[in-house]
Formats: sequence, C-alpha cells, structure tokens
Amino acid sequence: MAAPPAIVLSQPQMGENIGAAARAMKNFGLSELHLIAPKCAWPNDRAQILASGAGDILARARIHPDAAAALASFNLVFATTARGRDVLKDIHTPEAAAEKLRAASAAGASTAILFGGERAGLDNDEMSLADAVITIPTAEFSSLNLGQAVLLLGYEWLKSADATPPIRTRPSHALPASREELTGLFAHLERELDAAQFFFPPAKRETMVRNVRAMILRANLTDQQARTIRGMIAALVKNKYRGNI
Amino acid sequence: MAAPPAIVLSQPQMGENIGAAARAMKNFGLSELHLIAPKCAWPNDRAQILASGAGDILARARIHPDAAAALASFNLVFATTARGRDVLKDIHTPEAAAEKLRAASAAGASTAILFGGERAGLDNDEMSLADAVITIPTAEFSSLNLGQAVLLLGYEWLKSADATPPIRTRPSHALPASREELTGLFAHLERELDAAQFFFPPAKRETMVRNVRAMILRANLTDQQARTIRGMIAALVKNKYRGNI
Repeated sequence: MAAPPAIVLSQPQMGENIGAAARAMKNFGLSELHLIAPKCAWPNDRAQILASGAGDILARARIHPDAAAALASFNLVFATTARGRDVLKDIHTPEAAAEKLRAASAAGASTAILFGGERAGLDNDEMSLADAVITIPTAEFSSLNLGQAVLLLGYEWLKSADATPPIRTRPSHALPASREELTGLFAHLERELDAAQFFFPPAKRETMVRNVRAMILRANLTDQQARTIRGMIAALVKNKYRGNI
Repeated sequence: MAAPPAIVLSQPQMGENIGAAARAMKNFGLSELHLIAPKCAWPNDRAQILASGAGDILARARIHPDAAAALASFNLVFATTARGRDVLKDIHTPEAAAEKLRAASAAGASTAILFGGERAGLDNDEMSLADAVITIPTAEFSSLNLGQAVLLLGYEWLKSADATPPIRTRPSHALPASREELTGLFAHLERELDAAQFFFPPAKRETMVRNVRAMILRANLTDQQARTIRGMIAALVKNKYRGNI
C-alpha cells in the first residue's frame, strides 16, 4: 500500500488549527505531521483539545527550523496556495495532486504536502522548494482555514484509492421483486380498484392502469414490500366492507 | 445555472458548528441554511464568530420545529449518516450525490442535504423523509464534525460543475522552448564540456551526452529559461578562464 503524504505546516499561528489538521489527517489515513517554526507554544493545549482522538499524530509531530530542513527527506513535494497566485509551477486540483502523490508513493517516493501559515501563506523561498502547486477550487468567497485545507487534501488522498462504489443499493438478500410477485400485486390492486369503480371514465382505464403500474415499478419493490402492499390493500378493503354492513 | 442544495442541520448543539457550516457553505457557493430545533441559543454569538465572512448565511437561516416542516418544500433530499448504518435507501458517495443533486436541480427540483446533530445524528423519523443517503468515506478512525461534513459536501457540489483543468501549466506566453533554442543550448553546453574534458572516458561521451540532453528536456524549459542556462554556462566559463590567468 502506498504510504500517505506527510503534512508539513509552515509557521502555524494557532494551536487550534494544528489540532484540527491532525484530526482531519487521521480521518483519511494520514499520520506524519511536520511543523516549521510554529508561532505558537509547542506542545500546545488547544491543539490537543482540537485534535480529539488524533493526539498520537501531535505527539509524533516533528519540529523543524525552516522549510529546507522539513522537506529534506522528501522526493515529491506539493505546495498549497490560494488561487490566482502567480507561480511558475504546474497548478493541480486536489484530485489531480492526490493521483500524482499516490503514483509516486506507490513507486517508493516519500511525499509531502506543504501548507503556509494562516496569515501570509507560503513565502517565495518555501514555494521554490516544491515540485508543483495545489489550489483548492472554491466559489468567489474563498476563506478556507488550515484545518479545512488539510481536510480536503486528506479526503482526496483517501478517495484516490477508495473502492467504495458510488451508489450502494440495499443488500442482495433483498432483491428486486420477481415479475410474478409484481403481476400478482397489479392483478390484486386492479381487481379491487375495479370493484371500487376507481377507474373513471372507463375509456381511460387502460391509461390509468399503465400509470399506476409504472408508479409501482419505479419504487423498485422487493418481494416482501410487494406482499406488504397487498396486505395493505386487503386491510383497506376489509375495513370498507365492515363500514358498509 | 443549477441552484445549490439547501443545507439542513437537525438539532445542532454548538453554535461553533453552525458558524463553521455557514463558512464552509459560502466557500463552495451554497447559501440556504435551515435549522431544525437548534439545541443552542439562536441567534448565537459563537456561530457569528466562526462564520467569519458568512454572516449573511446565518442571518437568512430559517428555523423549523421538525424535519417535516424543514423539508416540506424540497423535491430531493439526501440524508448524511456515518458509515455502516443499516438503511433501506441507496447509499451514495459525496461525489455521486453531488452529481444527482446537480442533475435534479438543473431539471428544476429544489434540493437539500440533511445533517444530524453532533451527538446522535439523524433519528429514524428524519431518515424516513429522505430519498437517499450520503456516507463520507473515511479511514478506520472516523470523527468528522458537522462543519467538516458540510465542507466536504459543499466541495463536491462545486466540483460537480467545476471546469478547472486538473493540471494548469504556466501561461501560454511561456511556451516550451523551440527545438532551435534547445539545440543551441545542447551545442553550447557540450562544446564547453568538451573543452573542459568533462566527458571521460571518451568512449562514454555519447551515452553521457544523451543523458544530459534527456535531463534538460525533462525540465520542459521555456525559451527564456534555455537562454538563462546559456548565460549561466557563459558566466561559469568566464570565471574559470579568469581564475586561470
């Protein structure tokens, strides 16, 4: 399995954001955190609180004096910037970056994603050490904090190898109803509706029946659900006859 | 343009999370917020602070007594649940849900995404009002808060119609170098390296030249960069001759 990228936070100012970043990382299987010259106390109580169950990531976080030291061991480094920044490097969506990170990691490379501080982002010196850039697409209002940016990159990392099908239908023991069960339901319902003179005028019966059948088919019933509906029809009819006695 | 889905938060407990949700929404172009029986004071100071620039979304948020009232006007409703929950409905990834929401919205439907409270999530009654379910894929450790869940759904909504190319290379006024510029660079470099007797033993010259050229081509230089390298070679050579005088 490809080793996940390290997260490198340059000069983070608020312990809360470091904690939120750690928690975000753990949700998506990332575990290696590096801090470049944090501007807040370290270790940090607020970081511990915000990290919630991800305190182990904080405990193992490594502190470096500058970006060159923090990035020394990595083979592939992406830097994150807000959009519109003038850079000479290729700008990737988070999804495209995640794919490249995973491919590089699968080939044995040690990879990292570099995030700037809350106020100023990354400086030009830090940018110059990265292979490429990631910009998170946003609406015109763009105000992602550090924890949120780490969350979205972690999410795309996990997604890049996630085998969850886009849509999971109910378990296979509840297969769609057999046609026999459905035609039994149609016959039962239409017989009772005929008896109740529901189809009116008679010339429209065929169209109305077709619409009712389409409505039922669209519900994609199981056998059990088709039987439940037949039970409901029987119950409704029985009550009606009793009312008429 | 398709109207974005409304975000409906059921019984949120913490103002902070409502504020973070509003801020997350605004980053991705969502604007309609509904609250079902909030368990915190409303309006809420902490929500205002966390919303940052998204106070307008809070100001327009609508409060409802229950899910039936909150969802009354919507045609398509997705409910979010943590993974593994036993549901009779189709379970979507955020990406698959965003695609369905956008298609429905483009067809004129009014759509919503329903989120449960921080502690207990959605109850069965609330789930029964939703058309389908969204589960966010995570690692084994799964501890997304309300603001983070809204962030990820908002992100997928924006992505579902985002035309940003996966990789944007530098602007077109900086085209890759012409072959002429490159062969000029090769000739210049190889001439100076020959003069410096760099290629040794001579039998390996051809292989070494091929490797150096491949290294240069891989850098995907612009004309200007190729000229800059020629300038560096000239400068290095000049210094050397001066040193030898």
